[in-house]
Amino acid sequence: MASIYGNKLKISIFGQSHSAGIGVTVDGLPAGFSIDTAQLGQFLARRAPGKSPLATPRREGDEVEFLCGLYNGATCGAPLTGIIRNTNTRSGDYANLADCPRPGHADYTAAVKWNGHQDPTGGGHFSGRLTAPLCIAGGIALQILEKQGITVGAHIAQIENVTDTPFDDVNISAKELKTIAGKSFPVANDNIASAMEAAILAAKKAGDSVGGIIECAAVGLPVGTGDPMFDGLESRLASMLFAVPAVKGVEFGAGFGCASMRGSQCNDPYCIRDDAVRTTSNNNGGILGGIANGMPILVRAAFKPTPSIAIEQDSVSLSKMENQKLAVHGRHDPCIVIRAVPVVEAAVALALLDALL
Amino acid sequence: MASIYGNKLKISIFGQSHSAGIGVTVDGLPAGFSIDTAQLGQFLARRAPGKSPLATPRREGDEVEFLCGLYNGATCGAPLTGIIRNTNTRSGDYANLADCPRPGHADYTAAVKWNGHQDPTGGGHFSGRLTAPLCIAGGIALQILEKQGITVGAHIAQIENVTDTPFDDVNISAKELKTIAGKSFPVANDNIASAMEAAILAAKKAGDSVGGIIECAAVGLPVGTGDPMFDGLESRLASMLFAVPAVKGVEFGAGFGCASMRGSQCNDPYCIRDDAVRTTSNNNGGILGGIANGMPILVRAAFKPTPSIAIEQDSVSLSKMENQKLAVHGRHDPCIVIRAVPVVEAAVALALLDALL
Amino acid sequence: MASIYGNKLKISIFGQSHSAGIGVTVDGLPAGFSIDTAQLGQFLARRAPGKSPLATPRREGDEVEFLCGLYNGATCGAPLTGIIRNTNTRSGDYANLADCPRPGHADYTAAVKWNGHQDPTGGGHFSGRLTAPLCIAGGIALQILEKQGITVGAHIAQIENVTDTPFDDVNISAKELKTIAGKSFPVANDNIASAMEAAILAAKKAGDSVGGIIECAAVGLPVGTGDPMFDGLESRLASMLFAVPAVKGVEFGAGFGCASMRGSQCNDPYCIRDDAVRTTSNNNGGILGGIANGMPILVRAAFKPTPSIAIEQDSVSLSKMENQKLAVHGRHDPCIVIRAVPVVEAAVALALLDALL
Amino acid sequence: MASIYGNKLKISIFGQSHSAGIGVTVDGLPAGFSIDTAQLGQFLARRAPGKSPLATPRREGDEVEFLCGLYNGATCGAPLTGIIRNTNTRSGDYANLADCPRPGHADYTAAVKWNGHQDPTGGGHFSGRLTAPLCIAGGIALQILEKQGITVGAHIAQIENVTDTPFDDVNISAKELKTIAGKSFPVANDNIASAMEAAILAAKKAGDSVGGIIECAAVGLPVGTGDPMFDGLESRLASMLFAVPAVKGVEFGAGFGCASMRGSQCNDPYCIRDDAVRTTSNNNGGILGGIANGMPILVRAAFKPTPSIAIEQDSVSLSKMENQKLAVHGRHDPCIVIRAVPVVEAAVALALLDALL
Repeated sequence: MASIYGNKLKISIFGQSHSAGIGVTVDGLPAGFSIDTAQLGQFLARRAPGKSPLATPRREGDEVEFLCGLYNGATCGAPLTGIIRNTNTRSGDYANLADCPRPGHADYTAAVKWNGHQDPTGGGHFSGRLTAPLCIAGGIALQILEKQGITVGAHIAQIENVTDTPFDDVNISAKELKTIAGKSFPVANDNIASAMEAAILAAKKAGDSVGGIIECAAVGLPVGTGDPMFDGLESRLASMLFAVPAVKGVEFGAGFGCASMRGSQCNDPYCIRDDAVRTTSNNNGGILGGIANGMPILVRAAFKPTPSIAIEQDSVSLSKMENQKLAVHGRHDPCIVIRAVPVVEAAVALALLDALL
Repeated sequence: MASIYGNKLKISIFGQSHSAGIGVTVDGLPAGFSIDTAQLGQFLARRAPGKSPLATPRREGDEVEFLCGLYNGATCGAPLTGIIRNTNTRSGDYANLADCPRPGHADYTAAVKWNGHQDPTGGGHFSGRLTAPLCIAGGIALQILEKQGITVGAHIAQIENVTDTPFDDVNISAKELKTIAGKSFPVANDNIASAMEAAILAAKKAGDSVGGIIECAAVGLPVGTGDPMFDGLESRLASMLFAVPAVKGVEFGAGFGCASMRGSQCNDPYCIRDDAVRTTSNNNGGILGGIANGMPILVRAAFKPTPSIAIEQDSVSLSKMENQKLAVHGRHDPCIVIRAVPVVEAAVALALLDALL
Repeated sequence: MASIYGNKLKISIFGQSHSAGIGVTVDGLPAGFSIDTAQLGQFLARRAPGKSPLATPRREGDEVEFLCGLYNGATCGAPLTGIIRNTNTRSGDYANLADCPRPGHADYTAAVKWNGHQDPTGGGHFSGRLTAPLCIAGGIALQILEKQGITVGAHIAQIENVTDTPFDDVNISAKELKTIAGKSFPVANDNIASAMEAAILAAKKAGDSVGGIIECAAVGLPVGTGDPMFDGLESRLASMLFAVPAVKGVEFGAGFGCASMRGSQCNDPYCIRDDAVRTTSNNNGGILGGIANGMPILVRAAFKPTPSIAIEQDSVSLSKMENQKLAVHGRHDPCIVIRAVPVVEAAVALALLDALL
Repeated sequence: MASIYGNKLKISIFGQSHSAGIGVTVDGLPAGFSIDTAQLGQFLARRAPGKSPLATPRREGDEVEFLCGLYNGATCGAPLTGIIRNTNTRSGDYANLADCPRPGHADYTAAVKWNGHQDPTGGGHFSGRLTAPLCIAGGIALQILEKQGITVGAHIAQIENVTDTPFDDVNISAKELKTIAGKSFPVANDNIASAMEAAILAAKKAGDSVGGIIECAAVGLPVGTGDPMFDGLESRLASMLFAVPAVKGVEFGAGFGCASMRGSQCNDPYCIRDDAVRTTSNNNGGILGGIANGMPILVRAAFKPTPSIAIEQDSVSLSKMENQKLAVHGRHDPCIVIRAVPVVEAAVALALLDALL
């Protein structure tokens, strides 16, 4: 049941890195929505690898085939399924990993959970490749939200120790979000891009990888969207974001920064602006009691560095139960954060659309 | 559906701060487990208010009545329901808040979501008081886990700018966890307690409040516990923790710290120790691919300062749609972090038990 | 998780026959609905025992206490919990049944499932008494539906071999439904009541019991209510009705009668009537493809005879694993069908309201 | 969310009759199970059309492609997805039905529910063709159950007014079940086959169709399988079976026959046989309180006649809102009951496996 998300919008993701195909079924989309497939393709291209020296040289054939759910190009009420064929896989790269697990990856835990029956090739079901179907569903969700006046956009907030200008958490506009998210290197401050790229290339050259932080905002979400307790927006968004490989932290608004604040500083004061209730700061990231308060939704997700690195590491042989050195060959991203930007947007869009329906 | 959590263990929480009662139903507990009610009472007492000048002077009558689910003192397979009567409530304290919402609280979002039909007294369904039934369920879960060799314990990692010594993420033992969690002021480094208390009292004196961070660990969880994707341990734990009022951030292992690491530093190297696969660091907080790897589970939750403060704040009148000043009277914790320690333990225990069953 | 039903309206039922109390939590009710508690009381009274020689002489104190979910008498968005205290129980009546299970009851299966830890008194969690909380939730659902122009009503269609006039499946009106359901002996044809009562009394006199059929209709449900596949109205209604103790069959419209029909006879022809699409017969019971077609919803549930009878029966001793005779003493209904009429209405109302929200 | 079933085993079905493909995702299968694809192919062939004059002459290309979920031919823990391409469709046959709905079919209700955006071709998402993916999942479930000593088999109990010998509800063996289910015309009493075929051909010749009843049994299910209330075996099985197109009634054991019984007759007496607790009759169909009692599970499902018939029927024009005659052309089964036998087995197997895991 692990691969199904949502209450009113159900997202079921399937596939392994090297299986015949991967895909997603979305049940509960409003009927009659015409999908802009060109726009969806551009969105998926943002996640696709192989475009620059910053990403893995693998070429994933991310052409989506919709098996069902559409009639005359529009959603028809029935579940929508989109699949992507896996091609250009080199399973041989992974032959050793079933016995000698990569530190930081799910090789070992999957082997124990499934008693040696897991698919180890390319990380199997745990591969970052599984974010492609998430982006199919999320790309559609983004279009539906946009039609309802809700815009979701993200940027690279941090790579290693290089940080971008944070979003203006009170005044960020839909237009700014789209501008930033539309960049080939999505940062608010373009001057910082080269420093980030340098950090990635330095790691790559060292056979290493780097982590980072993605900040995502959503504007236009109606006040009152969300639910208390376990279906609060924070719970919904976090359970979705932590399902994205490599995410190790999620925070809303001032997040961990709240811990060192006083109430008088952290509370977001109310005011009337343009005949609407607004707040003059946004330390709560647009969410109070799990429910949207009309301010921009602000969430940050921390990504650990790609675990697959060329540098030799300490591992073990599971069959011999003895220590063993491991150097991971194959083609791996020195930094997944860039490609993860649309993934975070997709995840946020799906969680919000589910809460909104 | 917002008040129901879990897959195999279903937890349904109900109540408002000033309704006749609050409570919890737990379905799916293993049959034949004898609950140690004295131990449960001690656990609930850790969350109870009114014990020290650091907490609210309200006296909540947290005596639990089990309506069902037990037979001869042991779980009997049927759902278990525990309720607590609400007494000593002073609804008059909250008369104004339906129109003039407290900054940082759910007053406004609840009013919009439920179109003015919400129960505004004492924060209604959004009150921190609802963590009492969570602790009933969690206290039982802790006992069941303990019988299976799994120990969960938490400490105050930070109050405002004062920080405790972090848990030893590789070597923390069940005994240490119990010792720390059992303290009246649960910190690892007792020398820091007075500085934390001073921070709280300073805020209280100023009519203000402070936030903090709670760190929680679980040891003994079998390798392989958890699931991929949306049912990963991080997703399960985060969706539970973000349902606890005031939590604005959740991270595992090195969490946001991973962002500035390189892979060679963040990856936890494997080794064979005592004939078992272990890691020599624990930046992943015991979780890889959503599944436990046998190392201590480590999670941190950031709590914002209590939003109800005596200092005058900017708010609005919802009926007049104009700005209005607000000073919150009534009895409020200057810092909820101390009382939230057992709440975090309860939340973590419930999420882990659900994953384990 | 067995005790939770619903998608948008979540119903969680708890309790055992002889535990301190039983109850129900309903999450997802629309906020701002004022419950008519007098009407709810009358509805619950229809299910209550002890009124006539046809029912068990037990007096169940079915006074409902609402612990939460209401504010100023109206639903407030938070989950609503209603409980009933168990009084007047005589656990001694059941002392023997843990070892010597009643044929036709859940004594044996519960003992195996929960490994001897089940609560055997009064049937424990499997008692018909658990239909009281279902009626609390259902009674509220009936009121909400009624406000939306949807009326649900049932009658005794059969007791042993005595049958009532079936509902007019095309033309039954809300008024007729209310008239029939409001009777102390709810049958369409009052002349048949005495024959049904005679059948019950004859069985009672013989230390035996009788079964029957309840037919339920709902009018006013908007066309398009329901979903395909597993959330079709038939699936939703059946999974709810089979949760009512003693139900062994459920059919819609012509039901099992469809099996011997031809398509030309079973298909319900369409026509335009009063500017609306209607059908001239209703063999499909108002449901096509799991979705309401605007005709009356018609469902029938078959109830087996009460398993607890005074006549000596063949059973076994589970401890000795040998055959043993059993005569069940205590106070039992010779026929639960009369009291089950409001239970079926409650079940149908809950399933329809969940589908409608 | 309508297309997802199950608790521990999640089945997600997708597709429309004339979309590019249809399929199923199954999440929660035990890892390491080697699927016998030849056996699965034979099972699917039992459902496939076009084999005899009794079935539709359409040739559905029911070759399954497994996109994922397998590694070296065995389940690998990740969700398993199987798809079937839709070929040989003639959408032109259905051009008129979007405006002039077929009586007895979901054309009208789908149009209202989805506001005219539904896929009307071939019945869209409501087509009987969607039972093919159910059979993929169910065929695998049957193999897993068989390995655990649980056999599921069904037969045609009735076609129009011709009835087969019922299963021996106490003594039916796994071997007998397999023998009957393995027949090309699955009836217990072969002498009755020609009469059933004659009934079908007579209807076909008249441009009409006939209904029937399928009886299914499962032997070997461990005592204690199942849950109380809403997750009782009856609720689980019924919600699955009513999701099969054309099912209008479901009963267990004596089912509706219980209504005219007395308790002394309906209760199944216990006895010790072969050192096990057994019953000497099986009016409860192997289920007490929603939980298996070790006797054969017995369920019957009533199928209405295929709604698509050549005979002219009364319908309406939805665009003109006036009465209109309709004669359905195209290729339709005069009786779906024969092909539905494996579908019922698949449905029962999936529900039981989910309860068992």
